[in-house]
Amino acid sequence: VRALELRDGELTSILAPLPGAPDHCLIRVRLAGICGTDLQLLSGYADFAGVPGHEFVGTVERTPPEAESWLGARVVGEINIACGDCARCRSGARSHCPSRRVLGIRGASGAFAEYVALPAGNLHQVPDALDDETAVFVEPVAAACRILEQVPDVGARTVAVLGDGRLGLLIAQVLRGTRTSVTLLGRHATKLDLARRLGLDARLPRPDDAGVFEVVVDATGRPAGFTDALRLVQPRGTLILKSTCAGETALSLAQVAVDEVTIVGSRCGPFERALEMLSSGVVDVRPLLSGVFPLGAFDEAFAAARGGIKVLLRP
Amino acid sequence: VRALELRDGELTSILAPLPGAPDHCLIRVRLAGICGTDLQLLSGYADFAGVPGHEFVGTVERTPPEAESWLGARVVGEINIACGDCARCRSGARSHCPSRRVLGIRGASGAFAEYVALPAGNLHQVPDALDDETAVFVEPVAAACRILEQVPDVGARTVAVLGDGRLGLLIAQVLRGTRTSVTLLGRHATKLDLARRLGLDARLPRPDDAGVFEVVVDATGRPAGFTDALRLVQPRGTLILKSTCAGETALSLAQVAVDEVTIVGSRCGPFERALEMLSSGVVDVRPLLSGVFPLGAFDEAFAAARGGIKVLLRP
Repeated sequence: VRALELRDGELTSILAPLPGAPDHCLIRVRLAGICGTDLQLLSGYADFAGVPGHEFVGTVERTPPEAESWLGARVVGEINIACGDCARCRSGARSHCPSRRVLGIRGASGAFAEYVALPAGNLHQVPDALDDETAVFVEPVAAACRILEQVPDVGARTVAVLGDGRLGLLIAQVLRGTRTSVTLLGRHATKLDLARRLGLDARLPRPDDAGVFEVVVDATGRPAGFTDALRLVQPRGTLILKSTCAGETALSLAQVAVDEVTIVGSRCGPFERALEMLSSGVVDVRPLLSGVFPLGAFDEAFAAARGGIKVLLRP
Repeated sequence: VRALELRDGELTSILAPLPGAPDHCLIRVRLAGICGTDLQLLSGYADFAGVPGHEFVGTVERTPPEAESWLGARVVGEINIACGDCARCRSGARSHCPSRRVLGIRGASGAFAEYVALPAGNLHQVPDALDDETAVFVEPVAAACRILEQVPDVGARTVAVLGDGRLGLLIAQVLRGTRTSVTLLGRHATKLDLARRLGLDARLPRPDDAGVFEVVVDATGRPAGFTDALRLVQPRGTLILKSTCAGETALSLAQVAVDEVTIVGSRCGPFERALEMLSSGVVDVRPLLSGVFPLGAFDEAFAAARGGIKVLLRP
């Protein structure tokens, strides 16, 4: 099957064997999304080599006997492939299974390919009312919804989302669903315009934003985003860290102790809640779509993803 | 009055005017403790210039009329001098008052002097049963007790305290008061021996400590302590950050997001609880005392503080 392979920071088109294990479902990829993490992987994050891609919508074409009911279903898939047996899996924290593989990020071939493979337990059926271009956003919207699980009272607090990119625009919409006002702070005029068209309170950061917000979400995807977010958060406030960046950055943590800031690392989230948010229209993803490229045009697609918002690949 | 002054990283003995404002109590310093933060101040942390020192026990010798009942009392003092009027003060977070001065750290002359000045509201009477050498530990023990307020279920979780210095030895004792076992991880044979004499489970870190602890306290006072602590904490665990270090350090925060670690910055704590812990013997500080020096012998005292545990100055 055709797939994109990342090796030594270079992406190439290859012919790969069918992915997955006998107990996995084989899914024909209908659309796959390029995420900030994919751009980070190209810069060396997580030392990943193989087929990247972890946001997708597809059709189940082959299953193990016990999962036959999934045949033909249009699905999205949770990306952590856990052992299911260890103490952490049994405690419900499957996304933190120490021997997990992660689709397109760690030890598992990803969705920038004609086919992807996942256990049936990772799959979620897509309602007919959600088209492919919307459903491909389920994974990042779920990651945004993770914040609602980790900071349940976030709706009662003043919130800034820092970063007007893919994830920031989704997080701001998800959090707006819990309260009247969330401020999206970004640096790109066109993206801020888009955010305002989505009804968000979006603007450039100002000097008087320092120490103003009870909750700040770092969705910049840049190593310096942490320091910027720390500048915005109130003493005893909460900084939600969504950025995963390659390499080390010069940081000072003294303010974290002095201001007694709580930092909450945040990763994958609940797919069911994301499907609800997309179905109900709380989150509107269509305006975020910058382009759809065939798999072979990956160079153009990744270039567009660096400048634009959400770029999709169609294998 | 005689005092030590820090300027451009150099400590000198000076003759200073009497400290404080008319609404402050004037306290003759009986003993003052050298803290890791003082050593950091000498390295440039917080850009402090003036009289350092924030751990003390003293006798009230002069008061404003409304605080006359404090005259002659033996006291310890909370170090944050808040405005009392702002939104943050009214919400009870006086230690985060934006216009606060902090004894010997920010805008207020400290306790490495014959006299120190504080508002009466900052003072706590020392019970007769606590001698000066014990009472001078109230401030750092209170800082250790802050963890109990911030992570109320800490006693039900597996805890590692990283750092066998002044603060680590106090925190490990405070946390042990809540549960049967806390592991103190350090690098100094003599300090680990001392910790074991205090009945603590204390040892060198081991490779198999990685990802083991539900709660890790960074009490190293070193910038690299954060990275070491991050190595020890479980996914979805809590890292309590006590170290305040000058300057920036190269850090990677990707693991914080991937492992969904919660980092809790922690500073000043409840004096009443610290007085109880010292009175009841939950925390035993006498073995931590490395030496008592006259104020004039500050060079020797600071040298001893770098190598030892708790060094006191007697003005």
